[in-house]
Amino acid sequence: MAEAKKLGGAGLRGQVAGETALCTVGKTGTGLTYRGYDITDLADNAQFEEVAYLLLRGKLPNQQELDAYKQKLQSLRTLPDALKTVLEQIPKNAHPMDVMRTGCSMLGNLETENDFSEQDDKIDRMLAVFPAIITYWYRFAHEGIRIDTSATESDSIGGLFLELLHGKKPSELHERVMNVSLILYAEHEFNASTFTARVCASTLSDIHSCVTGAIGSLRGPLHGGANEAAMELIQKFQSPEEAEAGLMGMLARKDKIMGFGHAIYSESDPRNVIIKKWSEKLAQEVGDTVLYPVSVRCEEVMWREKKLFCNADFFHASAYHFMGIPTELFTPIFVMSRVSGWTAHVKEQRANNRIIRPSAEYTGPESEEWLPIDQRS
Amino acid sequence: MAEAKKLGGAGLRGQVAGETALCTVGKTGTGLTYRGYDITDLADNAQFEEVAYLLLRGKLPNQQELDAYKQKLQSLRTLPDALKTVLEQIPKNAHPMDVMRTGCSMLGNLETENDFSEQDDKIDRMLAVFPAIITYWYRFAHEGIRIDTSATESDSIGGLFLELLHGKKPSELHERVMNVSLILYAEHEFNASTFTARVCASTLSDIHSCVTGAIGSLRGPLHGGANEAAMELIQKFQSPEEAEAGLMGMLARKDKIMGFGHAIYSESDPRNVIIKKWSEKLAQEVGDTVLYPVSVRCEEVMWREKKLFCNADFFHASAYHFMGIPTELFTPIFVMSRVSGWTAHVKEQRANNRIIRPSAEYTGPESEEWLPIDQRS
Repeated sequence: MAEAKKLGGAGLRGQVAGETALCTVGKTGTGLTYRGYDITDLADNAQFEEVAYLLLRGKLPNQQELDAYKQKLQSLRTLPDALKTVLEQIPKNAHPMDVMRTGCSMLGNLETENDFSEQDDKIDRMLAVFPAIITYWYRFAHEGIRIDTSATESDSIGGLFLELLHGKKPSELHERVMNVSLILYAEHEFNASTFTARVCASTLSDIHSCVTGAIGSLRGPLHGGANEAAMELIQKFQSPEEAEAGLMGMLARKDKIMGFGHAIYSESDPRNVIIKKWSEKLAQEVGDTVLYPVSVRCEEVMWREKKLFCNADFFHASAYHFMGIPTELFTPIFVMSRVSGWTAHVKEQRANNRIIRPSAEYTGPESEEWLPIDQRS
Repeated sequence: MAEAKKLGGAGLRGQVAGETALCTVGKTGTGLTYRGYDITDLADNAQFEEVAYLLLRGKLPNQQELDAYKQKLQSLRTLPDALKTVLEQIPKNAHPMDVMRTGCSMLGNLETENDFSEQDDKIDRMLAVFPAIITYWYRFAHEGIRIDTSATESDSIGGLFLELLHGKKPSELHERVMNVSLILYAEHEFNASTFTARVCASTLSDIHSCVTGAIGSLRGPLHGGANEAAMELIQKFQSPEEAEAGLMGMLARKDKIMGFGHAIYSESDPRNVIIKKWSEKLAQEVGDTVLYPVSVRCEEVMWREKKLFCNADFFHASAYHFMGIPTELFTPIFVMSRVSGWTAHVKEQRANNRIIRPSAEYTGPESEEWLPIDQRS
């Protein structure tokens, strides 16, 4: 294992592992596009359901199509009794991503995709019911309440999540921010969780297996957990001055600081300027004088000292916090959004499949003689 | 998507995606080795637990180490009550691989790996309890019986599976065949399910996420399901003559025939000769005069007509069948075995990690102008 550096492409960095028509990341001029549409246009103008439709059906819906799509999603929020029972078995101290993974896997037992012709319906069901899965567990585990996930008013996935979490329909502003957030996180090419979904899809496995695997990958702290880590960071500081001093100390100690930089982007993350604007609006709404200024100072310090820019995750932390979302539910929101990108990739992989089966460079012993057990040291 | 052939390595075939010291597949002279040991030596001489120890701890155990390891595994067979409740929620007609995936995921909620220092214990627990998960569900769903998975006599994982399935300690021959089978399936380099586990591990996610994802990939018919498909094939025929005629018809119609050929091996699968011998022994034991001769004829026809050889899966079908194992449980046995290889790869990935994040060739539209919804067709 000591010779890993000999490998040209550790982590397959820069190696083409397949084709996609879904997304460009970091191309000159446009930092991020979904099927050719700039992320800024989508975040400024679209609803999340519109973007999910774009990714999954290949074009932006007209009004009639969008209405029908949202209506369909609204009709799919009910949790099966067996799934509720499963969620009630999961302890309060469980990792919420383990809950999402198990909820998705269990759904696959109850509503199995028997044939790929069913894929769109299974995908829409997951989009519609994921907010219900995580909030049902969360409120049962923390408050002992069994919520009715179908008795809801919100007509959007983001609104549904906030409504189920807080027990009341969210404000227009909060629903809008959730829409923006879900759009920003929806798709990002061959990141590790999406690639997991594609590897799984390449065996022609079912859609719930693909998404269950992707959730497991997104759970990793190098991937989905950065907005939670950013929250932990900014909550340490009571003022911009404290943040400045604290960050300088962390940099001096070479501590790991989450929410900055990106594997693909080198100068900025196009999603940051968007979510930052909404975080500022929310700060004004709640009368925040700490978290947002602290976040801005962190951004300034990291750029000044290290030329590191905020990625999509950093201002998501304060934005979610201002909407009363517990930190441990940040990554599950990522799942509610990215499931659209994952499943669009699964559809693409299925449409032109070869099993993903790379090779390995062997670094072990050439040949070992069998030794009977009584002769071993 | 029509230009997929432009890609050099569709499915990453032949591309090095990392290093491993665990396994060689298809090297000259030795068809398959685990840490340098030939698969034939291991299958002839070792117990499965010995091989799992080799893969996971890096060396063959001496007698004292093997005894302690088997004792540890024996102490880890009890199912948590919450997991039993979950398994009881899964309907009889569920896909057994969905049951395995959900059982593993649920275990991760109840016994979370909080730190990589816990990895060996979590892995051993999965090895020990997977036979209990699948048989508990199977017998509850099919017979309404709640089995006690810790009140068992067998001191091996293969024996435990048969004992829980049939409600009695298996014969020495059957336990031996299970050992051989679990050894043959334990490890196979960067196959799709193992690669799934490594991609997940590369985000530094937990061990249950890695294995849950791998189970989902193994579920795919291009990967783990071949022994079940082989069973369906051979059960169609009442005699070798019928098999000959039937296969010739299938070949003429270009039907897909499972259990033959391999993505990596080109002339033979070193595991076939081993399991074939044991299938023959079992055929003699049960007095079979149909399935084994039919299998042999299939092998002859496929080689004569297509130069296609039996892979590891083909004679596994009859061998499992002779031991009274229902066809739908064939792939879950694969899980019980391969979990050793998957987790050995996870340990290896963690020890020298870089997140696995390849690139994609973009085939979508270059740039699309945003169009307000009322202007869309």
